Amino acid sequence: MKLKTRLTDLLELEHPIVLAPMARVAGGRLAAAVSDAGGLGLIGGGYCEPEWIGAEFDEAGEADVGIGFITWRLDQAPGVLDLALERRPRAVLLSFGDIAPYADRIKSAGSVLIAQVQTLAQAVAAWTAGADVIVAQGAEAGGHAGHRSTLPLVPAIVDRVAPVPVIAAGGIDDGRGVAAALVLGAAGAMLGRRFYTCREALAHANAKQRAVEAGGDDTVRSSVFDRLRRWNWPAGYALRTLANDMTRRWTDDPGALADELEREINAFDAAIEVGDTRIAPVIIGEAADLIGDLRGAGELVHSLVDDAAARLEAAVDTLEA
Amino acid sequence: MKLKTRLTDLLELEHPIVLAPMARVAGGRLAAAVSDAGGLGLIGGGYCEPEWIGAEFDEAGEADVGIGFITWRLDQAPGVLDLALERRPRAVLLSFGDIAPYADRIKSAGSVLIAQVQTLAQAVAAWTAGADVIVAQGAEAGGHAGHRSTLPLVPAIVDRVAPVPVIAAGGIDDGRGVAAALVLGAAGAMLGRRFYTCREALAHANAKQRAVEAGGDDTVRSSVFDRLRRWNWPAGYALRTLANDMTRRWTDDPGALADELEREINAFDAAIEVGDTRIAPVIIGEAADLIGDLRGAGELVHSLVDDAAARLEAAVDTLEA
Repeated sequence: MKLKTRLTDLLELEHPIVLAPMARVAGGRLAAAVSDAGGLGLIGGGYCEPEWIGAEFDEAGEADVGIGFITWRLDQAPGVLDLALERRPRAVLLSFGDIAPYADRIKSAGSVLIAQVQTLAQAVAAWTAGADVIVAQGAEAGGHAGHRSTLPLVPAIVDRVAPVPVIAAGGIDDGRGVAAALVLGAAGAMLGRRFYTCREALAHANAKQRAVEAGGDDTVRSSVFDRLRRWNWPAGYALRTLANDMTRRWTDDPGALADELEREINAFDAAIEVGDTRIAPVIIGEAADLIGDLRGAGELVHSLVDDAAARLEAAVDTLEA
Repeated sequence: MKLKTRLTDLLELEHPIVLAPMARVAGGRLAAAVSDAGGLGLIGGGYCEPEWIGAEFDEAGEADVGIGFITWRLDQAPGVLDLALERRPRAVLLSFGDIAPYADRIKSAGSVLIAQVQTLAQAVAAWTAGADVIVAQGAEAGGHAGHRSTLPLVPAIVDRVAPVPVIAAGGIDDGRGVAAALVLGAAGAMLGRRFYTCREALAHANAKQRAVEAGGDDTVRSSVFDRLRRWNWPAGYALRTLANDMTRRWTDDPGALADELEREINAFDAAIEVGDTRIAPVIIGEAADLIGDLRGAGELVHSLVDDAAARLEAAVDTLEA
């Protein structure tokens, strides 16, 4: 079964399924597995570490993958974009900042420019700057996001930027979410947590296990881990993770965390190393109630599409003329 | 065109469209218009004012309407439930509290018991207490809501409470949202803002006009208006409204509002009276990017279903075997 949309046409995909470019989790092998299955795999370029990015493009081999960046971080390390464009990525996704300074370079290098936005106003700005595709990301997403939710945000952006294809992101974890994205007018769906649990993902085994077991009631938005990593995020965004000892202790008391910062950073770094998820973050979104799976990402792509198709056909069967 | 679901079967509806019981906005005429068009109209019983509720049941006349209550407020004024049950409501919706103390009275009076919940854990509790129908309400909804979002919350609850029918609420404003609710596994969709703009709604004309013009980027969650109305809401809920001078001034500074409370309450009461939406709240959700309309609610019910059906059929047309 295939789902044909403006996104599959533009990117010559078999399936409108996109891997969220989860920083340090969506590596070359995961991105390649998604692209090889007919979706769009995006390496999680995140904070622009050139060595990691080069190594992950190597891991992707000949697969036709793209890459995602945090735009305000790219502003501080713009040379990383050249490094990425030398690898001829299928697409470059930019999120959390102004894409205008990068649009021409990305498009003239032959990559599809994908702008991920969190508000309708940002979508209009990205459209004006020449984005080929727009990702409407809701606040239920894992990792950093804004304040709007996917269900109302997607159709609002679709109406404003048509005929530019829109990808729905945030809160999608199975074929039902993929089907919902399509009827909302999106041309594709981006998933994070479900791929996070796949065997090709670079998350620590303990973190994957927590992501499989977790429920959607258990996530929280905070700035705790950004402060521990000393990333100075602009206002308007927060990081959604599973709640753990760190978020419970510090989310509502940033001043006290500032006083204890050195000690907590040491504990945090040690926890990352050993995969202690009481302290290290499990960066997944609210669509975490499904059991998840530790299988291969390619198999997951196919099952998502088959499930979405079945859901759409079942919904049409509820119609009575 | 009709959409047949477990909800339409249980409640003998023509359409799986439910009017959100917006306090003091969803009166008898609006509820009757929705029910008469084949949906489920719910009077906004809200804070349990017996005279208002009696008058609005009178306005509904012979129409087969239901009523919604804020559960923690009902705990303080339990006699109001008897008053409502004497009117033989089609359904009673309870939200924001424990439904167990009311379940038997409502069901043995012949009303369908609808529990609106904001988390998966609450859904399980409502199912255990005997709810006939569960509303999965996302934080993008207007008025009070919790923290989870509709898109991931609905399928999680559907999986846990099956075969109890689930209604999706929050972020739904047109046929696309209705269609999305159905493919997520919901048996119906609840809408607020779109009905708020209808001619039968009891909102002030100025507030309706703002609700028509508003955009989804313009809403905000706060406790400002609860404090001005002296309602002591339990933790875990906030009120989503359009941002205005009041939310901009006080949302992030509750201590300062406490110091100015008497003066601000006077200004607030005066603004409510004249419909000054710079100060009085326009209580609508994030699905506010569509233009809205000031037509009759019955016509809206039919157009929502026709649009949803068309969206589902169009999505199936994207399938390639």
